[in-house]
Amino acid sequence: MSLERNEPGSGKPGKVYLIGAGPGAADLITVRGARILAQAEVVLHDALVTEDMLQLCPQAVKISVGKRSGQRSTAQTHINQQLVECAAQYKLVVRLKGGDPMMFGRADEELRALEEAGIEIEVVPGITTALAAAAATKHPLTKRGIARSVAFFTSSTAPNQPEQMALPDCDTLVQYMGGKEAMATARRLLAQGRPPDLPVVVVENCSRSNQCIMRLKLSELEQGLSHFTGPVLVMIGEAFAARNPTDAGT
Amino acid sequence: MSLERNEPGSGKPGKVYLIGAGPGAADLITVRGARILAQAEVVLHDALVTEDMLQLCPQAVKISVGKRSGQRSTAQTHINQQLVECAAQYKLVVRLKGGDPMMFGRADEELRALEEAGIEIEVVPGITTALAAAAATKHPLTKRGIARSVAFFTSSTAPNQPEQMALPDCDTLVQYMGGKEAMATARRLLAQGRPPDLPVVVVENCSRSNQCIMRLKLSELEQGLSHFTGPVLVMIGEAFAARNPTDAGT
Repeated sequence: MSLERNEPGSGKPGKVYLIGAGPGAADLITVRGARILAQAEVVLHDALVTEDMLQLCPQAVKISVGKRSGQRSTAQTHINQQLVECAAQYKLVVRLKGGDPMMFGRADEELRALEEAGIEIEVVPGITTALAAAAATKHPLTKRGIARSVAFFTSSTAPNQPEQMALPDCDTLVQYMGGKEAMATARRLLAQGRPPDLPVVVVENCSRSNQCIMRLKLSELEQGLSHFTGPVLVMIGEAFAARNPTDAGT
Repeated sequence: MSLERNEPGSGKPGKVYLIGAGPGAADLITVRGARILAQAEVVLHDALVTEDMLQLCPQAVKISVGKRSGQRSTAQTHINQQLVECAAQYKLVVRLKGGDPMMFGRADEELRALEEAGIEIEVVPGITTALAAAAATKHPLTKRGIARSVAFFTSSTAPNQPEQMALPDCDTLVQYMGGKEAMATARRLLAQGRPPDLPVVVVENCSRSNQCIMRLKLSELEQGLSHFTGPVLVMIGEAFAARNPTDAGT
């Protein structure tokens, strides 16, 4: 397929779609997201986007703009610039982000850069990992009379952020990228008086072939999760109590 | 198409899929959800599931099990019973729920009833309305240095619940089914010292043809949202500040 590039000097930039890829499995993207991906001329994707997912856009030029926490934050400025440059070159540009683009995805900075350059944008939501993890473990995040509010949070790695951000006081707590930081979260929750046997579910590589589900207690979470290497989601709360004895062992 | 019913007395119940339909638009279901819907023999769906969505399963028997808040909670027991009965009759049963099935969806009760009856279950996540609303309004729910945690909550209509549940202390607050209750939420947030000009975005009928987006301030939310009639999502926080002057008017 020949790519329809914008004529040099035509002046009309392309349209950029910010699309949520979902947690990893290629069929957990939305129908709308898959349809646009199949039409994309260029796809700028995160490190968390799987190979299976990229097979939905065989026709597109693929640019990996992956960055993991720990790398310099200037990388985001470079991604913003790449997006603007791609929109000048191509008519249909996709920025494909793991999970949902509007939660923990630096979308604000990308939207701002594109808007300042006068580029048309559309956002297509994706399945955020917490909901895929709830589905995979068959544990609803809310439970009548037991869990009526849910908080999603992450740990900041930015040097100018206070490390000890207040923990949300919701019934259900979900910590994204919670591998190393979950130990500190557990310690603080215990200090706040949450019970040591509060159920915890940890999901690594959610929805992928190497998905790993671990059930433990808050007091055990305090001991750390050092053996996980992939993206880890930590879910804490009474909502994660086993429904029946057979459920507890899975 | 002839429906493959289980042989009476065959003893092997069907499989039940709890599927998230997403916010309403038929192409905001996942690829997996759409594929299973197209194979379903019977679909038990909420009142919030759109006609467009039901066109994805022309072959299926459709049973509306919709209930709106305000109806008696015994209705849920009846839905649980219907699910178990359908699994005895059909091989592929879909329980289609608006948004995501694992958040504010009474999934716990349905899972419990099905598990007790020994029925195989699979959960397919869906786009929860808050993420579709963030996409529609182009307002990320998190924002580097400004909004690092997000709470999803709803108002209880159960008679045995305390009406004045503590409001989550997250940076971004999203109240589901927030039409009538949002006024009280605003009043309490103001009393807690949140600023009167805190940005609020209200989305009615998210992702549907009659979607309505309204931008206001916390002090204005306190005056009420009486003119909305459809499902209303209320999003509150600094993350919803307009990025630029043209953005404010949309």
